Amino acid sequence: MVKQERAARTRETLIRSAAEIFDRDGFSTASLTAISSRAGVSNGALHFHFSTKAVLVDVVEETALTRLLAVTNGAPPLGTSRVQLLVDVSHALADALHDDVVLRVGFALGGETSRPPRTDLRQRWRCWVEETLRQAEAEGELRRGTAVQDAATAVVAATVGFEVLGVRDPTWLAASTVTRFWRLLLPTLVAARLTMVEAGGTRQPSPAA
Amino acid sequence: MVKQERAARTRETLIRSAAEIFDRDGFSTASLTAISSRAGVSNGALHFHFSTKAVLVDVVEETALTRLLAVTNGAPPLGTSRVQLLVDVSHALADALHDDVVLRVGFALGGETSRPPRTDLRQRWRCWVEETLRQAEAEGELRRGTAVQDAATAVVAATVGFEVLGVRDPTWLAASTVTRFWRLLLPTLVAARLTMVEAGGTRQPSPAA
Repeated sequence: MVKQERAARTRETLIRSAAEIFDRDGFSTASLTAISSRAGVSNGALHFHFSTKAVLVDVVEETALTRLLAVTNGAPPLGTSRVQLLVDVSHALADALHDDVVLRVGFALGGETSRPPRTDLRQRWRCWVEETLRQAEAEGELRRGTAVQDAATAVVAATVGFEVLGVRDPTWLAASTVTRFWRLLLPTLVAARLTMVEAGGTRQPSPAA
Repeated sequence: MVKQERAARTRETLIRSAAEIFDRDGFSTASLTAISSRAGVSNGALHFHFSTKAVLVDVVEETALTRLLAVTNGAPPLGTSRVQLLVDVSHALADALHDDVVLRVGFALGGETSRPPRTDLRQRWRCWVEETLRQAEAEGELRRGTAVQDAATAVVAATVGFEVLGVRDPTWLAASTVTRFWRLLLPTLVAARLTMVEAGGTRQPSPAA
C-alpha cells in the first residue's frame, strides 16, 4: 500500500516535471533525461511509468483535460445566469492557465503540428463555450439579434489568445485582462434584463492547482 | 547581374521553404537538409546564403515583419474612419495569415519559448492596434466610456486566437469569422455617429502573398 502510494506520487511528479520541461524546451527537443532529472528520479524509474516520450505527452494531455473539466464542471450557485457562469469559468480558466503548467501545456498541444491531434483541449473548451451560450439563448439571456456562433467565436478566440500570449507575458492571464474583455463584450451579448452580469466574475478565486 | 538575380531568387525560395518546413516540423526539429531539399538546392547553396539554422529563423522572422508592415501600413482611402481601418486591416491580416506561410511562421515565433524573443510580431501587431485605437479615440470615434486598453485587449487577443486556431482549422481565418467578431464588438466600441462601420471590411481582398 505504502509502495503503491509512493509509485502514484512519483507518477504525479513525473507528469508535472514533464510539463515543465515541455513548457521550457518544446515538445520535440525535450529529453526524457531532463524530465527524470527534474523529477529527481532515475531514467529507469521514468521508463517504469512511461515507456516512451509519446506516451508521456499523451498522459500530460489527459491530465490537463481532467483539470479543464474540473474548471468547467463546477456547479454554478443557484440563480446564477448562464452568461455569468461563462464569465466566471473564463476567469477560473485564466487563473488555472496562469498557475498550472500541466493545463497550459495541455492547451499548447492543441497547436502542435508535429503530432497528430488527440484530445484537443482548445476544441473541448470551444464545445463547452458553445453549449453554455446555447443554454443562455434558450433561457432568453442573450440580446435579441446576437447569434450564439458570433459570441462563441469571440469568446474562444480571445481566451485562446490570452492562453498563447500569456506564455511570454503572464499579465494576459490576469483577472483585469479577462474583465476588460467582458466589459466590452457584455453590452452586446446579454439581454437588457441581465445588466447585473459581473464582468469581473462572482466566484471566489479557485484554489491554486 | 543575371547571377545576382538568380541568387536573390534562390534566397527567396529558401526563406519560403524554411517557413514551410518550420510550419510542418516545428522550429527545433526542422532540419536544414529538409529545407534545402524542399527548395530544390544543395546543402552547400543553403549554407552559402544562411550559415546556421538560427540565422535562417531570424531571416524568416524579418521577412514576416516586412509582410506585416505591408498589411498595416497601407494608406486608408480618404474619409475612412480609424475604426474602419482597424476592421479592414484585421481582415487583411487574417487573409495574409491564411495565404502566407512566412507570415504565419513569423507570428508563431512570438510563442517559441526555446528561442530568445527578437522581433515579436504579435507585439508589433499589438502596438499598431493600440496606436490606431488611440487615434480613433482622439477623433471622437470611440463610444463614451470605452477605454482604448479594453478594446486593444479584445482585438489583440482575438486576432492572435484566430492566428493560433487557424493552424489546425483554417476557417478561423475566414472573412466570415473575423466579421462575426466585429459584429459583436462594434456596437460597444464605436460612437453612435459611426454606425456605418462595416464589420465585413470595405477593402478589396488583398492579392495573395
